[in-house]
Amino acid sequence: MDDRIHDHAETLVDWSARIERGDDVVLAVAEGAHDLAVATARVLGERGANLISLYQSSEIAREYLRAHDGEFEDDPGYQLALYEQADSVLYLGGSHNTAATADVPGDRQNAYSRARQAIQEARMDTDWVSTVHPTRSLAQQASMSLPAYEDFVYDAVLRDWEALAAEMADLKEILDAGSEVRLVGEGTDLTMSVEDRTAVNSAASVAYDSHNLPSGEVFTAPESPEGHVTFDVPMTIRGKRVRDVRLTFEDGVVTDYSAAVNEAVIGEVLETDEGARRLGELGIGMNRGIDRPTDSILFDEKMAETVHLALGRAYDACLPDGKSGNDSAVHVDLITNMDEGSRLEVDGEVIQRDGKFRWEDGF
Amino acid sequence: MDDRIHDHAETLVDWSARIERGDDVVLAVAEGAHDLAVATARVLGERGANLISLYQSSEIAREYLRAHDGEFEDDPGYQLALYEQADSVLYLGGSHNTAATADVPGDRQNAYSRARQAIQEARMDTDWVSTVHPTRSLAQQASMSLPAYEDFVYDAVLRDWEALAAEMADLKEILDAGSEVRLVGEGTDLTMSVEDRTAVNSAASVAYDSHNLPSGEVFTAPESPEGHVTFDVPMTIRGKRVRDVRLTFEDGVVTDYSAAVNEAVIGEVLETDEGARRLGELGIGMNRGIDRPTDSILFDEKMAETVHLALGRAYDACLPDGKSGNDSAVHVDLITNMDEGSRLEVDGEVIQRDGKFRWEDGF
Repeated sequence: MDDRIHDHAETLVDWSARIERGDDVVLAVAEGAHDLAVATARVLGERGANLISLYQSSEIAREYLRAHDGEFEDDPGYQLALYEQADSVLYLGGSHNTAATADVPGDRQNAYSRARQAIQEARMDTDWVSTVHPTRSLAQQASMSLPAYEDFVYDAVLRDWEALAAEMADLKEILDAGSEVRLVGEGTDLTMSVEDRTAVNSAASVAYDSHNLPSGEVFTAPESPEGHVTFDVPMTIRGKRVRDVRLTFEDGVVTDYSAAVNEAVIGEVLETDEGARRLGELGIGMNRGIDRPTDSILFDEKMAETVHLALGRAYDACLPDGKSGNDSAVHVDLITNMDEGSRLEVDGEVIQRDGKFRWEDGF
Repeated sequence: MDDRIHDHAETLVDWSARIERGDDVVLAVAEGAHDLAVATARVLGERGANLISLYQSSEIAREYLRAHDGEFEDDPGYQLALYEQADSVLYLGGSHNTAATADVPGDRQNAYSRARQAIQEARMDTDWVSTVHPTRSLAQQASMSLPAYEDFVYDAVLRDWEALAAEMADLKEILDAGSEVRLVGEGTDLTMSVEDRTAVNSAASVAYDSHNLPSGEVFTAPESPEGHVTFDVPMTIRGKRVRDVRLTFEDGVVTDYSAAVNEAVIGEVLETDEGARRLGELGIGMNRGIDRPTDSILFDEKMAETVHLALGRAYDACLPDGKSGNDSAVHVDLITNMDEGSRLEVDGEVIQRDGKFRWEDGF
């Protein structure tokens, strides 16, 4: 077995999930994640954790959901009990086919999700972490060969997380102290308020309230955007590739939009509800192991030299105690490059220019 | 997908486990059982059952057990809760390597089992059913090609179970009314008492207290064997192939034994405890879909024209209410052919001769 699989498992168990002796761990294994599951089981055994493995098969989900009449029982007790009593849930993604559930009717999927809200909350209350094992299917989604994709994934996952967390703490401090963020680049000049907001240092560990491996972003919940922004990183939204989305904000609300490809998808998102026309997130990618988009939000939004903005729901963690941020049924991330020719300012001070932060060589 | 996989799933869900709308089902999926799991998920969806899938990977188990220091926590509550509240557990066997756990130290495996007694009891209290999906690894264990092994498995599983249950009910009635069973064949002349015993009609359904698919045997708990018996069906016991085991019983206890191959394994079994030298089971195979031994006890012991005897623990279901049968830490099945030249008598009356029961053509 590739040594990097073992290193991935150790990073997951020790850095990300902080698992200790006697912890009750649920390992949720996708169809293609077997090797990572085996490596993780070894580390969990070494740490003396308890282990049960779930089979997170999208092909099983497809058959079950399509065959069911859609009248799902609310939160079956035996499943709720498992998650309510678990300490950690480790999701090992890695499909054989990213389109395996493409023919499940949307309303069936929604009915299933609605019937499992308490289960979902119980899972979110654990020290959960989501990661992926590199499979041929994910490599294909990224338009890469498997060996090249493996290199990409391990570069993203096997970071010096202590060092990156410290660097991200510096940026968080700047954002927390600041009032206004401005993004400038080709097709982009946008200002937004971060007054009274608290940024999250998402350092791929539950110790940082960060539940993705890899992570490597600092995010906050901005308000009152003004100006325009062009998202030049290609993305798939609702199963459709979109390119060069451009949004115009006035008084905090989207007043105009366009896209070079699949513009209608953006229109659909914006029409979801009132909150869908406002910003829910500003995230600043800082993971230098992620050097290209791979059409997977787990990786793309953490890519160094990018910034992402989300239409829709904000994370309350970024708001003052007791306050709630922008509310919406959606949270759709869009990504823009911040390399050559771009800059990010906080209260008029340039924090990042041409892809380099002010504390980096070459700034 | 092979239609027989779907038929297997329907037999499992409807005939064997009797699953109904709202039942809380745990699907435990071995590494090679994916296709059967997908087919079973469809049937469970159609029936409106609730579903959670476990990944029953022997490679995960190996890594976890070898890495652990052996001080396992007793019955972790999150796992106990899952099984205590479940209605059915469906075990879909089908390994990629039947020797995957061969290098797990026996004491580690035993310590793990000891720490999970309440979980094991909770599982046994559900309407559980064990079956297998035909894999290359199981075909290899059976010395068969995969297509031939698939034919074999589906012949064994896709029976007219109603008809077989009715036939087995006739044999059960004879055994329940009888006092003494005698087996006669080449190298075999053994009598044993079944006085006051209740035979189990093991018809591959929880409705018959039968938890294997395939099944197709009638079994009881005999006492006081006298005589000798030769087991000419090859078996693997404790990882070792044994051939032509011969046992001599006097006053109900094994007084002499031999085997053509790996005789020492039989000696080990007999020395486990006092109960290991007594009989725990007499089982009569009646599944005519199983036409050859495949070195898998799930199939071999149900093979038509065979009888098996187990050294060790008896099933209390065969004893009068409140009484317990032979007690032992082991239950080791040994199988003998009852074809050409053999007969089975109950109280002196011939019930089976040359492999045919008295109600069959050609008797």
